[in-house]
Amino acid sequence: MNRLRDIVAVPIFQAPMAGGPSGAPLAAAVSEAGGLGSLAAGYKSCTEMTAEIAEVRALTTKPFAVNVFVPHPDHADADDIDAYLVGLRPQAEELGVSIGDATWDDDDWSAKIEALVADPVAVTSFTFGCPPNEMIVALQGAGSKVIVTATNPEDAATSARSGADAICLQGIDAGGHQSVFGDSEEDVRGFGILALLAAVRGRVDVPLVAAGGLMEGRDVAAVLVAGADAAQLGTAFLRCPESGTNAAHRAALEAPDLDRTALTRAFSGRTARGVVNRFMTTHRSAPSGYPQINNATKSLRRAAAARGDYHATSLFAGQNFALGTQRRAADVVRTLMADCADILGPTVWTSG
Amino acid sequence: MNRLRDIVAVPIFQAPMAGGPSGAPLAAAVSEAGGLGSLAAGYKSCTEMTAEIAEVRALTTKPFAVNVFVPHPDHADADDIDAYLVGLRPQAEELGVSIGDATWDDDDWSAKIEALVADPVAVTSFTFGCPPNEMIVALQGAGSKVIVTATNPEDAATSARSGADAICLQGIDAGGHQSVFGDSEEDVRGFGILALLAAVRGRVDVPLVAAGGLMEGRDVAAVLVAGADAAQLGTAFLRCPESGTNAAHRAALEAPDLDRTALTRAFSGRTARGVVNRFMTTHRSAPSGYPQINNATKSLRRAAAARGDYHATSLFAGQNFALGTQRRAADVVRTLMADCADILGPTVWTSG
Repeated sequence: MNRLRDIVAVPIFQAPMAGGPSGAPLAAAVSEAGGLGSLAAGYKSCTEMTAEIAEVRALTTKPFAVNVFVPHPDHADADDIDAYLVGLRPQAEELGVSIGDATWDDDDWSAKIEALVADPVAVTSFTFGCPPNEMIVALQGAGSKVIVTATNPEDAATSARSGADAICLQGIDAGGHQSVFGDSEEDVRGFGILALLAAVRGRVDVPLVAAGGLMEGRDVAAVLVAGADAAQLGTAFLRCPESGTNAAHRAALEAPDLDRTALTRAFSGRTARGVVNRFMTTHRSAPSGYPQINNATKSLRRAAAARGDYHATSLFAGQNFALGTQRRAADVVRTLMADCADILGPTVWTSG
Repeated sequence: MNRLRDIVAVPIFQAPMAGGPSGAPLAAAVSEAGGLGSLAAGYKSCTEMTAEIAEVRALTTKPFAVNVFVPHPDHADADDIDAYLVGLRPQAEELGVSIGDATWDDDDWSAKIEALVADPVAVTSFTFGCPPNEMIVALQGAGSKVIVTATNPEDAATSARSGADAICLQGIDAGGHQSVFGDSEEDVRGFGILALLAAVRGRVDVPLVAAGGLMEGRDVAAVLVAGADAAQLGTAFLRCPESGTNAAHRAALEAPDLDRTALTRAFSGRTARGVVNRFMTTHRSAPSGYPQINNATKSLRRAAAARGDYHATSLFAGQNFALGTQRRAADVVRTLMADCADILGPTVWTSG
């Protein structure tokens, strides 16, 4: 029996994609289709988060997840950040905007946790770190399952020890931010999802959700065979009509001049995978400085996206974004499961 | 019907591991067990290669492979290499050896190809590039299948267009050298094996061999499900008694102070994955300069290995080396296939 069957009907989780794509319509559509939709609370205030939760609840009574960014103390080197931002000035001038202040913030952390304990959702998931055990216990006591996202075996072990109900393993192929608990070069360990599953499956006793570059039913089948209890996909939903992906981002995903992804800190100060565009090739080495750099570049990214200039904004996406389609989210979920069942048989849920 | 069934009885390929591990005893043992053993001609003269081929033929009549390194023109920056080598002097002094000359060579390329056309083996495989079509045709005409190793979709497409019979897809999790056709930062694209299979399986019409971090039967099952025709494993064979892995390397693979791998150019001037030891953490950024740096560091690596000092020599291994065992190669092959059949059923060969 699959260990996540009490949460969802089919082992398809929609990855939280902060910054627009995974709003209420997408989360509700995936949950309605039997998978687990997810809101991305990252970059948002607690008030915005709770409004979005209400929006999902108006669309579906099915379980869904809310993903929260775990804040880190301000350890960034302000001089390094300033030096990096000077290099962005020509682009800011071209776009007619000012670079924002490189301020640190905690992403409204305490208020969000308080709200999610007071009025819980089915699943609370975390990115960039593992909350303390007391906080996990509080969420669980309120009725929420807790999932922590980890990119290496040590962070996965920490998550299990801290009491997480499940661990989302995120391979290096995943689009968007890598959920490394630190952000030094050494923290980004470079596990593909299959190797990460192999490294973790014998070491922890909680269900595993596999993420990273999964696009088709046979990818889902492969991770279930390799020990995952569910597959999490983000890029596969990026072009769905229900997704909040902006027009510039959508155009980039089918642009003939953009054919590959890479890891970069250029947009946010934290390692993330995006489609390689001129911004990324121009600003190759950015310091570790999240959320300062993210706050500083927000005006640029927004102005470029509004103008449709996909070479000047962030285009977070996984390795195989070219395999994405524009189908509705429910169609994506259904096709994934049908193709998966063709390979593993109708008992797909028990094969993990 | 699996498209590699005319070569091997079971879909297990042993990765060529140049520098010692995959000599004749290991290759013969894997081929005898029904898989495809492989010699590593890299770093060897043509004479040494042909002697080793004779050695395998004395041990088995089964098909086996010989892997050849494709040479590249000398584009390295001699000043960068010299500056890097200056940093190795303290260690050379400590070991009582001199740093070797940073000479370029072509790894006896033409002689090896001539020998492999004149007296072919079942499979000739290539690393670091794709030979020209005429050469592939010559090897095929002599009766050898040709496999090219690729780490990204573009190199895989090049290999298919050049006439390769099969492509070995090598994920970023693989131990040893990455078979990137270039070696700039951008050439190392960071595909985990599952994402690489997804990127390539619909784009080429030749059988695919999947490599990178695979250690157990369910990893083999997963790549077959994801579209591979066979799985290639190196690190899983590294500690077999038949393997030529030196004692320092073997000790490192079970040393409690060594628990992770990373990509490095420090030993050879080309990107490779190895267990992180003091050499790697001391010499973090090495220039692209293969085989010059490899030739220069040979004396150091050998002296350190002879002394059993695993902190001062190369310890190439894949992400999940900790899952390796000391069993005989035939046991490794048998266990992989038994565990794979438990998941996919006895018809495992047709599931690709």
